[in-house]
Amino acid sequence: MTEGTARMDWARDARTGLPEAVYAEGKTVAQLIAILSEAAAQDRPLLLTRLATSRLADLPPDLRANLDHDALSQTAIFGTPPQPAAAGVTVVCAGLADMPVVGEAVRTLAFSGVRAQVVTDVGVAGLWRLLERLDELRAARIIIAVAGMEGALFSVLAGLVSAPIIAVPTSVGHGVATGGHVALNSALASCAPGLVTVNIDNGFGAAQSALRILHAGR
Amino acid sequence: MTEGTARMDWARDARTGLPEAVYAEGKTVAQLIAILSEAAAQDRPLLLTRLATSRLADLPPDLRANLDHDALSQTAIFGTPPQPAAAGVTVVCAGLADMPVVGEAVRTLAFSGVRAQVVTDVGVAGLWRLLERLDELRAARIIIAVAGMEGALFSVLAGLVSAPIIAVPTSVGHGVATGGHVALNSALASCAPGLVTVNIDNGFGAAQSALRILHAGR
Amino acid sequence: MTEGTARMDWARDARTGLPEAVYAEGKTVAQLIAILSEAAAQDRPLLLTRLATSRLADLPPDLRANLDHDALSQTAIFGTPPQPAAAGVTVVCAGLADMPVVGEAVRTLAFSGVRAQVVTDVGVAGLWRLLERLDELRAARIIIAVAGMEGALFSVLAGLVSAPIIAVPTSVGHGVATGGHVALNSALASCAPGLVTVNIDNGFGAAQSALRILHAGR
Amino acid sequence: MTEGTARMDWARDARTGLPEAVYAEGKTVAQLIAILSEAAAQDRPLLLTRLATSRLADLPPDLRANLDHDALSQTAIFGTPPQPAAAGVTVVCAGLADMPVVGEAVRTLAFSGVRAQVVTDVGVAGLWRLLERLDELRAARIIIAVAGMEGALFSVLAGLVSAPIIAVPTSVGHGVATGGHVALNSALASCAPGLVTVNIDNGFGAAQSALRILHAGR
Amino acid sequence: MTEGTARMDWARDARTGLPEAVYAEGKTVAQLIAILSEAAAQDRPLLLTRLATSRLADLPPDLRANLDHDALSQTAIFGTPPQPAAAGVTVVCAGLADMPVVGEAVRTLAFSGVRAQVVTDVGVAGLWRLLERLDELRAARIIIAVAGMEGALFSVLAGLVSAPIIAVPTSVGHGVATGGHVALNSALASCAPGLVTVNIDNGFGAAQSALRILHAGR
Amino acid sequence: MTEGTARMDWARDARTGLPEAVYAEGKTVAQLIAILSEAAAQDRPLLLTRLATSRLADLPPDLRANLDHDALSQTAIFGTPPQPAAAGVTVVCAGLADMPVVGEAVRTLAFSGVRAQVVTDVGVAGLWRLLERLDELRAARIIIAVAGMEGALFSVLAGLVSAPIIAVPTSVGHGVATGGHVALNSALASCAPGLVTVNIDNGFGAAQSALRILHAGR
Amino acid sequence: MTEGTARMDWARDARTGLPEAVYAEGKTVAQLIAILSEAAAQDRPLLLTRLATSRLADLPPDLRANLDHDALSQTAIFGTPPQPAAAGVTVVCAGLADMPVVGEAVRTLAFSGVRAQVVTDVGVAGLWRLLERLDELRAARIIIAVAGMEGALFSVLAGLVSAPIIAVPTSVGHGVATGGHVALNSALASCAPGLVTVNIDNGFGAAQSALRILHAGR
Amino acid sequence: MTEGTARMDWARDARTGLPEAVYAEGKTVAQLIAILSEAAAQDRPLLLTRLATSRLADLPPDLRANLDHDALSQTAIFGTPPQPAAAGVTVVCAGLADMPVVGEAVRTLAFSGVRAQVVTDVGVAGLWRLLERLDELRAARIIIAVAGMEGALFSVLAGLVSAPIIAVPTSVGHGVATGGHVALNSALASCAPGLVTVNIDNGFGAAQSALRILHAGR
Ligand SMILES: Nc1ncnc2c1ncn2[C@@H]1O[C@H](COP(=O)(O)O)[C@@H](O)[C@H]1O
Ligand SMILES: Nc1ncnc2c1ncn2[C@@H]1O[C@H](COP(=O)(O)O)[C@@H](O)[C@H]1O
Ligand SMILES: Nc1ncnc2c1ncn2[C@@H]1O[C@H](COP(=O)(O)O)[C@@H](O)[C@H]1O
Ligand SMILES: Nc1ncnc2c1ncn2[C@@H]1O[C@H](COP(=O)(O)O)[C@@H](O)[C@H]1O
Ligand SMILES: [Mg+2]
Ligand SMILES: [Mg+2]
Ligand SMILES: [Mg+2]
Ligand SMILES: [Mg+2]
Ligand SMILES: [Mg+2]
Ligand SMILES: [Mg+2]
Ligand SMILES: [Mg+2]
Ligand SMILES: [Mg+2]
Repeated sequence: MTEGTARMDWARDARTGLPEAVYAEGKTVAQLIAILSEAAAQDRPLLLTRLATSRLADLPPDLRANLDHDALSQTAIFGTPPQPAAAGVTVVCAGLADMPVVGEAVRTLAFSGVRAQVVTDVGVAGLWRLLERLDELRAARIIIAVAGMEGALFSVLAGLVSAPIIAVPTSVGHGVATGGHVALNSALASCAPGLVTVNIDNGFGAAQSALRILHAGR
Repeated sequence: MTEGTARMDWARDARTGLPEAVYAEGKTVAQLIAILSEAAAQDRPLLLTRLATSRLADLPPDLRANLDHDALSQTAIFGTPPQPAAAGVTVVCAGLADMPVVGEAVRTLAFSGVRAQVVTDVGVAGLWRLLERLDELRAARIIIAVAGMEGALFSVLAGLVSAPIIAVPTSVGHGVATGGHVALNSALASCAPGLVTVNIDNGFGAAQSALRILHAGR
Repeated sequence: MTEGTARMDWARDARTGLPEAVYAEGKTVAQLIAILSEAAAQDRPLLLTRLATSRLADLPPDLRANLDHDALSQTAIFGTPPQPAAAGVTVVCAGLADMPVVGEAVRTLAFSGVRAQVVTDVGVAGLWRLLERLDELRAARIIIAVAGMEGALFSVLAGLVSAPIIAVPTSVGHGVATGGHVALNSALASCAPGLVTVNIDNGFGAAQSALRILHAGR
Repeated sequence: MTEGTARMDWARDARTGLPEAVYAEGKTVAQLIAILSEAAAQDRPLLLTRLATSRLADLPPDLRANLDHDALSQTAIFGTPPQPAAAGVTVVCAGLADMPVVGEAVRTLAFSGVRAQVVTDVGVAGLWRLLERLDELRAARIIIAVAGMEGALFSVLAGLVSAPIIAVPTSVGHGVATGGHVALNSALASCAPGLVTVNIDNGFGAAQSALRILHAGR
Repeated sequence: MTEGTARMDWARDARTGLPEAVYAEGKTVAQLIAILSEAAAQDRPLLLTRLATSRLADLPPDLRANLDHDALSQTAIFGTPPQPAAAGVTVVCAGLADMPVVGEAVRTLAFSGVRAQVVTDVGVAGLWRLLERLDELRAARIIIAVAGMEGALFSVLAGLVSAPIIAVPTSVGHGVATGGHVALNSALASCAPGLVTVNIDNGFGAAQSALRILHAGR
Repeated sequence: MTEGTARMDWARDARTGLPEAVYAEGKTVAQLIAILSEAAAQDRPLLLTRLATSRLADLPPDLRANLDHDALSQTAIFGTPPQPAAAGVTVVCAGLADMPVVGEAVRTLAFSGVRAQVVTDVGVAGLWRLLERLDELRAARIIIAVAGMEGALFSVLAGLVSAPIIAVPTSVGHGVATGGHVALNSALASCAPGLVTVNIDNGFGAAQSALRILHAGR
Repeated sequence: MTEGTARMDWARDARTGLPEAVYAEGKTVAQLIAILSEAAAQDRPLLLTRLATSRLADLPPDLRANLDHDALSQTAIFGTPPQPAAAGVTVVCAGLADMPVVGEAVRTLAFSGVRAQVVTDVGVAGLWRLLERLDELRAARIIIAVAGMEGALFSVLAGLVSAPIIAVPTSVGHGVATGGHVALNSALASCAPGLVTVNIDNGFGAAQSALRILHAGR
Repeated sequence: MTEGTARMDWARDARTGLPEAVYAEGKTVAQLIAILSEAAAQDRPLLLTRLATSRLADLPPDLRANLDHDALSQTAIFGTPPQPAAAGVTVVCAGLADMPVVGEAVRTLAFSGVRAQVVTDVGVAGLWRLLERLDELRAARIIIAVAGMEGALFSVLAGLVSAPIIAVPTSVGHGVATGGHVALNSALASCAPGLVTVNIDNGFGAAQSALRILHAGR
């Protein structure tokens, strides 16, 4: 069996304002090499998500040399995207175990030229930590909120600020919270107004939604 | 088919400190009449839960005369239990739609001689409402917290006070929250310390747990 | 048992830019009357959602006279909010059975001064219906997309336009789609970039998110 | 404990037009050897699915020599089936991570003498990719459509062509899509007409259904 | 709120060989009237499914006069479709409670000119009932198999005949089988080869798939 | 649409030792009448389950005259089965709300000539109630145990007696116990040895299993 | 932390007729050694289930010398139980991948002195395989039926024989069948009469139930 | 990407009476080192849970030297908390496989100065084991009950004693019990009065709830 040929959606940027990106999990080495080679040939920067550190060794040295891989978020940036600049996006998380997802969001924004602010470890068990950063959060134009377990951070935050809030439930948690469904459902069922959510652990998708909102505001 | 004979657990009080109680849903009229008649014969007060207002008309007048039925909570007190007195138990809820469950808890406590404080409509969407009542809540010896939807109230409260907190998730909510499972899972997966929970809409069970704690403190 | 006292979050507008609103389902008549009377006393307009037509008859005539109730969306506007004006928000739906949810979104936007465009019955089974309206959809600043069943509309739309897209999965559908979870999960798992979602049938929440985005763009 | 004796259903072909095949997962080495030896003794070709590459080393060299194993699809063809010829079956997939399932379908068809067309990476996020191949797809007599995540490809395709469409949802995806249930439910709940589905990742079953349809058309 | 305008997919027939059809559940009376009026104006026959008998009274007499409504299957045929003729399609069911779904399939086929054979009450609890009809079933070109509870009929049938088999799991059953998920999963997980399935109770979809297969065989 | 013809499995008794029975839910009046008429014509007694009291009025008087209907268990015995005699089967239940299911088991046994013992309201919340009846339970040859909520009765009983125990989980309970899945899973996951279970509320199936065991012991 | 002390239920045999047994999974080496030493000291044979082959090396040689471990079923018999003799119990399975569960049942029966008959690989996809063995199965006093995937074997068998049938659903299967829930639900929802079931993969429990039935027949 | 900075909630003790604690799973080595260093710098003892033994080697020797790690419960105590003293808390478990969770509870209590009693292996399959220890259990001021599988221990215990009972369902079990949801739901749906529960395997949370109750009793 052949492994199939990738059909890159380079036109996506023109249609949606969002760049084509590669979800590396489940792709074979040969498929990844073909994709990176096409990007190199066309001299396009490219974002890869869910690229395990252990797979880097399988790539040929010349391609690897152009890959900026981040182990925490398992993202890689191929080639040279524009320099990021501040645009009012803040990424806030409830606990340190959420940092890989924070990282995926921050790197996705960076790839599209947006440098995010990061506020970490402000879960509601110690509410003062969130209140301490409230001025900062109120100043944000868009907030990406990242939390696992019961995701109470989403509701509390949405009741306190006026910016659009994109919830990213994470798979952090055990027992009933295993896999992130409790945090996801908390975001969906929130009593606080005007909260939207993306899939569990989907920092990439949250960042892309934030980019759509930034474009809408132009 | 015979409808079967109730075997009342009158000894429960001696073993557990908690009175026998009757879950009226699913019982036939004949069964309820037999139970009430036995309680009357032994001159024991008796608590009934989940007794729909529409079923009252099926009971004979003499039994009905001794029933103090509350339409909101669908509870009935048969006979005359002791006068309730304050004991440091506060029942707090997130929204007005939670009041039937608050009522079940309050009435169950009252049946066992405990007069509860009630704090209503302090959901976290408007956090100031909870903070406004914080002194009161911090003064409580035991807190029963009642909330539906995403149940963020449980976590916020547990991070702010030192009393034992018994969460009662309610079936209030729509979409993914239908039936109360999101609030229940939020209580279970809470990032805040030392929260316990009972079944969805189980104000009765929360009250009984509070009674156990009161006894333990004696 | 008392039915409890509502604690209206009138300060929400100042904190979040979004008005307090009342979720009528599960509230007693006495509770609704108290809330409407408070709004009347303070001369504030108020949005009520999930108010069944059959309950209108329970309200006193003077309050009812100030209620503009819409049977399709089960929403009511109490008092006189500002006149709505166009702001670039388009609400699009897959089928006619989604119209009650479309209505909830449109009315919530109208209550906050935004007059939405509506595009109906453009499900992907006949893709030409969507493509026929594509120019209109591409011109929108924000899109609220409403669909039940398998919710394929969300992904197709997100691949074609650049505006922020807020998916509202509906409970329309039978068999595995009963209750709307398939459409919800399709929105969450979408292969298309930058899609966000709210709870099933939550036209209200989608509208409130759109308002946050409009404010962010100012 | 003995490992049991296989009872091969060699008569299946006569009853159903479909050859007996072996699901290798969960079978012991001894069981596999006995099955292959029986096929060898009767000089029958045999298809094996879900045979991990790592297990090949456990088989005796003479049996292994007659096995054509494909690493991508984890299928093996034992002996020499007829040469495949074109019959109007097209296998189309949404992304490259679906290729193992595409491979299982293609190899199952090949084993029964049918050479399939393959169309890869035409997910609806970039709709032009599908539309570009539409003439090809419209020319197909039967379509097997393979997709994970939210499976929107199934509905879009079913609205555009007249051939029978067999959906194969795949386990590709994360968060709520983990394991393939979202894609499966999308196929089942599709608003587009006349779509049928098989189990998650079941390329084998889809191919066998296609063979039934081919036979029915004779 | 306006109730929206239907956008009928009259072109569906040309694209897919399948006629546009109306899912009546969830549509308002005004919406149904507009749709029927459009069909009348264009002199097109139209199939409606899930049209409750109780709703007929809401339609104006002239439209009702052209509606052939079947109470068992809750289907209605508006106008005059072609006379049905035999085409080798057999609909078989496990129990009498499955007949409404059988009826939906039979009526959908009839609307497109296909007169189906029906074999009823041949569930596997008494296997002889199925075996007694085996010659008939083996002679069919396409089989639609309808069953609830544990759906064992699907597997047994698929092991005995060579025609394409479209399973329609029904919501008949209680306890774990409530709603039809067990029968659906049995169809999906079947050990028998080449079975495909549609959504629970979806006789309409099964009939449409059969029509696709008939067209493919031409 | 015709309503289809029942194919009664009168031969079941010869094959399995268990009589054909009719599951009345989901059958139309015409279907029920045809079945009863066939039984009358052949002079066979017949058991009907899930026959709602409200449907009796739809049956013709001559058939109704031969029906012994029990409102609690919703069962009907048509014609005259043998007189029941004791055979060592005891049916025990946890609470009075389980009595309809107890009744279905008792009536099914009676139809096949077995008169059961009944022990009611011995749930483990008051363990003494069960222990009080232990001698009786230890004397039983077969036990059918009926319980809802958390079904702890099953495990406790299975640790105390040596007879075969058939658990019948019931749908009695609220919150997470709604529908009976918790009691079912408790039976399946029991730490006590040699417990078997049937579907939720399936008193009929439990009785039939008991009959198989009685036959095996002959 | 101490690892705790086992409290062996040696009295179980006297109460229930079933011997104490050890579920090895999740127990530490020290716990297992203490248990085996106690059995050795009291000179009692002991059955262990779910004892992974890899753990044998952790046990001291003298204990290991008395362990008869079976790799397929992951069971071990410590000491010398009585010689097994035939008692009319037949274990039948649908496929070879079910053999580990068959083995657990066979070994549990053997430990209690019962030598079972085994019938393998008679899944309903090739119904003739089951029918070929029907005389044998009809002669059995008790049948333990083991099947994964959709578990259609349970219903077919229960319609054909009169012996008690204990279904053991297995975790064999993929996609929706992963983990065995489909086979379990098929057993529970079966349309065939008098089927009982145990937990997924619970060959041990099925054997213990069979022992109870054997005792009841004495 | 930076790994983020921990924001320790040292003030938690003052607010809630419960010490800050660290959930080690999902935290990077660098994050753990920073946290331990901060605790060391402030000379505060600190409890860590879910710290895998394999991770100890990653910590610098000086920090490791102050860590008292327990392999069974995967907890670590950093620094020197107060000496534990008896306070009436008893931890009871159903089986030996529950000991890691028992350990987490015991160590959490110890960290806060409470030395617990432990009663092991008293599952209800052999009820005498529990009854044998009943006096001890009745003497407890608070009971933490730990059980997996079907969790029947919770209900039996709650019917026998008067102390507050905190159920800790464990993930011990297979088939339907996999992951602990059956035990959890049994605790929630219990027919016995006044039982509360925490998340699956959450020995830590149960201990913290016990501490709240102890404080309330002061
Ligand atoms: N509202 C309630 N929710 C949960 N449990 C209840 C409720 N009311 C009573 N109970 C308990 O349920 C047990 C069984 O009820 P019964 O079926 O009346 O014997 C009683 O003994 C009470 O402990
Ligand atoms: N239809 C709706 N869906 C979801 N949330 C709503 C809806 N209507 C109102 N809300 C929100 O629910 C909160 C609680 O409502 P209430 O119970 O009326 O205090 C309100 O403050 C609103 O933010
Ligand atoms: N009973 C049915 N089950 C599933 N799909 C249906 C049914 N009836 C009609 N449909 C399909 O659902 C689509 C949407 O229906 P409508 O909402 O009427 O536009 C129609 O175009 C049909 O293809
Ligand atoms: N209450 C019941 N629960 C489960 N199965 C039943 C019940 N009553 C009858 N049955 C069985 O269901 C089969 C199918 O019923 P019917 O649909 O009437 O042909 C009968 O042959 C019985 O074996
Ligand atoms: Mg791509
Ligand atoms: Mg009772
Ligand atoms: Mg409010
Ligand atoms: Mg085979
Ligand atoms: Mg339409
Ligand atoms: Mg029948
Ligand atoms: Mg033990
Ligand atoms: Mg922390």
